[in-house]
Amino acid sequence: MSDSSTNFYDLVQPAVKKVNPYVAGKPIDELKREYKVSYVSKMASNENPLGSSLKVATALHNFAANMSRYPDGSGHNLREKLAAFLQVDMNQITIGNGSNELLELVARVFAGPDDEVMYSQYGFAVYPISAQIVGATAVEVPAKNFGHDLPAMLAAITAKTKLIYVANPNNPTGTLFRRDDWEAFISQVPSNVLVVLDEAYLEYAEHACNDGSYPNGVDYINAYPNLLVSRTFSKAYGLASLRIGYMLGCAENISYINRLRMPFSVNAYAQVAAITALSDPQFVTKTLRTNDQGMMQVRNAVEAKGLEVIPSFANFITIKFGENALEIYEKLLREGVIVRPLANYGMTEYLRVSIGNNHENNHFMGALNKVL
Amino acid sequence: MSDSSTNFYDLVQPAVKKVNPYVAGKPIDELKREYKVSYVSKMASNENPLGSSLKVATALHNFAANMSRYPDGSGHNLREKLAAFLQVDMNQITIGNGSNELLELVARVFAGPDDEVMYSQYGFAVYPISAQIVGATAVEVPAKNFGHDLPAMLAAITAKTKLIYVANPNNPTGTLFRRDDWEAFISQVPSNVLVVLDEAYLEYAEHACNDGSYPNGVDYINAYPNLLVSRTFSKAYGLASLRIGYMLGCAENISYINRLRMPFSVNAYAQVAAITALSDPQFVTKTLRTNDQGMMQVRNAVEAKGLEVIPSFANFITIKFGENALEIYEKLLREGVIVRPLANYGMTEYLRVSIGNNHENNHFMGALNKVL
Repeated sequence: MSDSSTNFYDLVQPAVKKVNPYVAGKPIDELKREYKVSYVSKMASNENPLGSSLKVATALHNFAANMSRYPDGSGHNLREKLAAFLQVDMNQITIGNGSNELLELVARVFAGPDDEVMYSQYGFAVYPISAQIVGATAVEVPAKNFGHDLPAMLAAITAKTKLIYVANPNNPTGTLFRRDDWEAFISQVPSNVLVVLDEAYLEYAEHACNDGSYPNGVDYINAYPNLLVSRTFSKAYGLASLRIGYMLGCAENISYINRLRMPFSVNAYAQVAAITALSDPQFVTKTLRTNDQGMMQVRNAVEAKGLEVIPSFANFITIKFGENALEIYEKLLREGVIVRPLANYGMTEYLRVSIGNNHENNHFMGALNKVL
Repeated sequence: MSDSSTNFYDLVQPAVKKVNPYVAGKPIDELKREYKVSYVSKMASNENPLGSSLKVATALHNFAANMSRYPDGSGHNLREKLAAFLQVDMNQITIGNGSNELLELVARVFAGPDDEVMYSQYGFAVYPISAQIVGATAVEVPAKNFGHDLPAMLAAITAKTKLIYVANPNNPTGTLFRRDDWEAFISQVPSNVLVVLDEAYLEYAEHACNDGSYPNGVDYINAYPNLLVSRTFSKAYGLASLRIGYMLGCAENISYINRLRMPFSVNAYAQVAAITALSDPQFVTKTLRTNDQGMMQVRNAVEAKGLEVIPSFANFITIKFGENALEIYEKLLREGVIVRPLANYGMTEYLRVSIGNNHENNHFMGALNKVL
């Protein structure tokens, strides 16, 4: 019975009505389409400016004969490789469609309308979204110097707190917490409160934090069964196009996540790519070296202009442009440079710039000179 | 506070506790690992035995330079191509991680614990799972001749019915409903009840049903805004490894699905592959011809042994083996042939066999001779 008077919005679940969808970095094709710019540097999504290991491209090319076959939903071969790489048990690992899927799944498995989901001010946008999609109460704890205020987060735990998201380093601010602060925190979180430690930028932080004080999540999963650690192949491994991440935790909680995970959420190309990428640590080393150089190059140039930056332990840097930030963003787009406005994080005066390769960094700095 | 007495199961959401996860076809690697079989024909997942268009492999090879870039979450280029291909508006289309993601998303957007979600007996396993993950009441309507009893489904609609899944043809039974029956059904469903028409096997059915009586879902989305049509590139296009499907409907309902969809659920390789696959209709034609021949070959051989089959309009055939079905399944595994047991569909006496290429079909028939 076709009836144009049906109001479909009334049929949408209450929690879904309140979701503020994720705002992605502007795709290169879109900029070219909308702004008629032909040469574009995308420094908006913290992607790897070196691309990915050449071994991966070869492995995918050789895999093409299997294109019509469904992926192994359990990710057996990749989990086997990761288990050896990380010295954990295979059943302490699950894989996801980027770490994004896993961050959402933890909320969907454990949190509901009666629960509180906690994260820090300036925390990654997927945390509030994860709270919203399950109708949980989102508790945002004020940041300290743009980073996590872990003691304040501890103090904000209530009987309703079900899940806490923390990121180390944090995106979009690049801030870090050290081992002492982390251990003081995780040891005091009640064991029936789940903690998700998001280590998307692990490789950069462990490298930049060269006094060894970076707390690597994998070292804590056995002592704290309420801890889940998420990681991605999208950054240091350069596989963002393929969508693959993984989560570590106690076998029991990993099994609950697998129960809700779609059977084939991680495509087969991504699994082959990740296995191959793990066999080319030289590519990661080169990535980190490139990032070191680029970070110094961009930071020095920006500071030389009298602009403030938030010191970053990742592959991006967040710069204070003041009240003209959005205007500068628009002008940079017209110069073919895509950076990331942070208004949706309440940081209206800031722009986040991914560290690029030498070429991209120069494009950004040249455009900035023109625009300022 | 580490406390080994925490019972994490108590923390899991009630609906999630009741989920019966999807059981996938046994992966080839797993069979080789567990059964020490070296030569395997997988006829368990209705994959394309011809692989995929060679143009796709070339396109993916050329795409490798973009590996480190995030996909376009909106799937702009693919939706543009699909819109032209199907003669619909771009905003009537959304893309998903296989049609599986879209089938789940419809339930997550529209259904909750107070709602009923309806599907047919022997309907695809993802329908009950979709009801379970949102805690809705699953209403399974008895099948008629292993297919949808559409009048009985109409009669089962109550004030609580929010969503009805139908598949044409149905998987795992291969049955079809025709235009007259479909139109009688969709025209009588109340406009505030959503209908998902799953057309995963569309290409096979439209071809097999050569009297033109196959009702193509796209012809109904404008007249029925409560209709959503899901399709996949995993079958006739041979892209199962990459995970890509799409959904058609009214722009408003498509926008609600996009609100809950993860920003990058469809990887960039899949998007490039699908765009390229749409440009090679010859591959689909060859696929359908191969399926015709294989279907006849397998069906004749099986019927010659006195076994009953369910006449199929898709790329698989479901065969009645009687009470020894599971034993025969196990014996076929030892011969290197993977077919699909259907006990989880309550069809304990049946096995579903995907139509393979000539080589695979012969492997199956040879193994069957040995086993019976």
